[in-house]
Amino acid sequence: MSAIGATRGENVTADSVNALLENGRILTTPVLRSVVARLAPPMDTVASYHFGWIDQAGLPAEGDGGKAVRPALALLSAQAAGAPAEAGVPGAVAVELVHNFSLLHDDLMDGDEQRRHRHTVWKVHGPSQAILVGDALLALANELLLEQGTAEAGRATRRLTSATRKLIDGQAQDISFEHRERVTVAECLEMEGNKTGALLACASSIGAVLGGASEADADALEEYGYHLGLAFQAIDDLLGIWGDPETTGKQTWSDLRQRKKSLPVVAALAAGGPASERLGELLLADAKNPENDAFSEEEFALRAALIEEAGGREWTSEEARRQYATAIAALDKMDMPDEIQRKLVGLADFVVVRNK
Amino acid sequence: MSAIGATRGENVTADSVNALLENGRILTTPVLRSVVARLAPPMDTVASYHFGWIDQAGLPAEGDGGKAVRPALALLSAQAAGAPAEAGVPGAVAVELVHNFSLLHDDLMDGDEQRRHRHTVWKVHGPSQAILVGDALLALANELLLEQGTAEAGRATRRLTSATRKLIDGQAQDISFEHRERVTVAECLEMEGNKTGALLACASSIGAVLGGASEADADALEEYGYHLGLAFQAIDDLLGIWGDPETTGKQTWSDLRQRKKSLPVVAALAAGGPASERLGELLLADAKNPENDAFSEEEFALRAALIEEAGGREWTSEEARRQYATAIAALDKMDMPDEIQRKLVGLADFVVVRNK
Repeated sequence: MSAIGATRGENVTADSVNALLENGRILTTPVLRSVVARLAPPMDTVASYHFGWIDQAGLPAEGDGGKAVRPALALLSAQAAGAPAEAGVPGAVAVELVHNFSLLHDDLMDGDEQRRHRHTVWKVHGPSQAILVGDALLALANELLLEQGTAEAGRATRRLTSATRKLIDGQAQDISFEHRERVTVAECLEMEGNKTGALLACASSIGAVLGGASEADADALEEYGYHLGLAFQAIDDLLGIWGDPETTGKQTWSDLRQRKKSLPVVAALAAGGPASERLGELLLADAKNPENDAFSEEEFALRAALIEEAGGREWTSEEARRQYATAIAALDKMDMPDEIQRKLVGLADFVVVRNK
Repeated sequence: MSAIGATRGENVTADSVNALLENGRILTTPVLRSVVARLAPPMDTVASYHFGWIDQAGLPAEGDGGKAVRPALALLSAQAAGAPAEAGVPGAVAVELVHNFSLLHDDLMDGDEQRRHRHTVWKVHGPSQAILVGDALLALANELLLEQGTAEAGRATRRLTSATRKLIDGQAQDISFEHRERVTVAECLEMEGNKTGALLACASSIGAVLGGASEADADALEEYGYHLGLAFQAIDDLLGIWGDPETTGKQTWSDLRQRKKSLPVVAALAAGGPASERLGELLLADAKNPENDAFSEEEFALRAALIEEAGGREWTSEEARRQYATAIAALDKMDMPDEIQRKLVGLADFVVVRNK
């Protein structure tokens, strides 16, 4: 994906980003597994399936547990505050638990049948287990943080709770957008800030909070994470329309099929001009016809072409670039070791320069 | 309900229990309303419907918000610790939020269409809103407590989180029992302790924790609330089979229709003897026939009679009495004003001597 041009992490190679992600996984996965094992059966099994540790038959698996960007950010944030990476581990695991709570519930609400190239939990174990295990992961996140018993853990829990509330607000907004004819660019950005920005903000600061950072430093890291989340989401919205199904694991025109009012769409509709107006007419007609499974590839291709012609694709690319720049600039508000700052820039580059 | 014989709260009249409950409502409802108003639309509306503040059309209503025993307990527990009732308000509201989170999700999982004589949220606003608003209430509970910013609030949040985890474990156990042929009395009691006891334990101690009580005193109050919860649930299980539909608002033989493996059923099955064996055969045959809507009243009446004949009704009444006695005895482990102890006994009487 070349949505972002030159990035600032020239000194951090792809290899070292992979090492950061891998290190995050190594430090956090054993803790994640041990807290998931606290769940009453069959929730422990259902959660293990969700995390890719076992397959549908209950046999050990090496599933795709996701990119694990959030744990890596949480550990780096501890180091940014001068603490060892290990200080961030409970925060990293708590954020992963909240993230996966939201995946379990959102997949059910959205009717998504696939995640990480496997059937979703509600599809395999039924809606009740998806609800219950999601609830349990959310409660576990708070349990894990609060049992640290420190004032820092209390502050971290408060920030995580605030992020969780925003995450839920964002999902509520996303669902309400489906029933609306028009959504403004500002509303879309607010929704994406809640749904994606807030938890990435928390991931990027929670380790620092646990490591004893000042509120001002934690806020600077939150700002980095929030705008990184918005950059991430802008790229995600581009991939949702123009991504390669082979690498994204989703269908072609995935977001158009789901009629998502994502950034490229709302930006194109707001742009004005002939392509924007034609797109508006088509989407309005589509909305009156709730079943679009019968749409041909050509019909999706036409909508995608109109979004691009109206400038929605270019605007979203620029938006990703703007959010990336704001994220990187926020790092200068905090005094941190140069090496850690370079790594945070490197992770930001990884998040925005991607094709899946 | 005369399941419990003589109780100890002779000095607390029904009027003064009603005053306790009403006082709890007066102190907590404004705070509950103000935190619910923080939710993004349409979650604020959906939650207001759930709490009975508005009707399906969105017009103001004076709905039945439930007995409000938990808020009253939370405020009394603050007073037990020598603090003013007001000190317990954030705890009372947080417990109510968690309780209602579980109602929203459980009604959806259980397919229950009615609650407090009104349609349930998932039935009116759809499953997604029931999931989302439940999630939001859970997060709000932690938010409200943690924003108090005190060490006591941190301890209270930790106890509330522990209770929430047990609540979820209990619901998971309850669901798993539906798919099993036999459940032991011990398993049933464990499930009910998780599903009902844990949150009542938290309600009975959270005000004290916020009011600065020692861990030992908070534990004594938790013990009172836990066993009170088990007594409450035993009565609930009796009403679920033999309650008067006019007062309970449920169908006749409600729990038998839902094939719940409640205490009277598992106790009857464990008792042995001809009635117990006949009941076991019938329930086993029922389990092979998943649709029992066609069952006649006589068939339910036969099952209820066999449960009673096998001793399930009497055992459950005795169990309620035992749990009540254990709850009351726990109060002597803490040094508290006599007047408050009398009120806690009075509330316990109210909880176990009821017909709906």
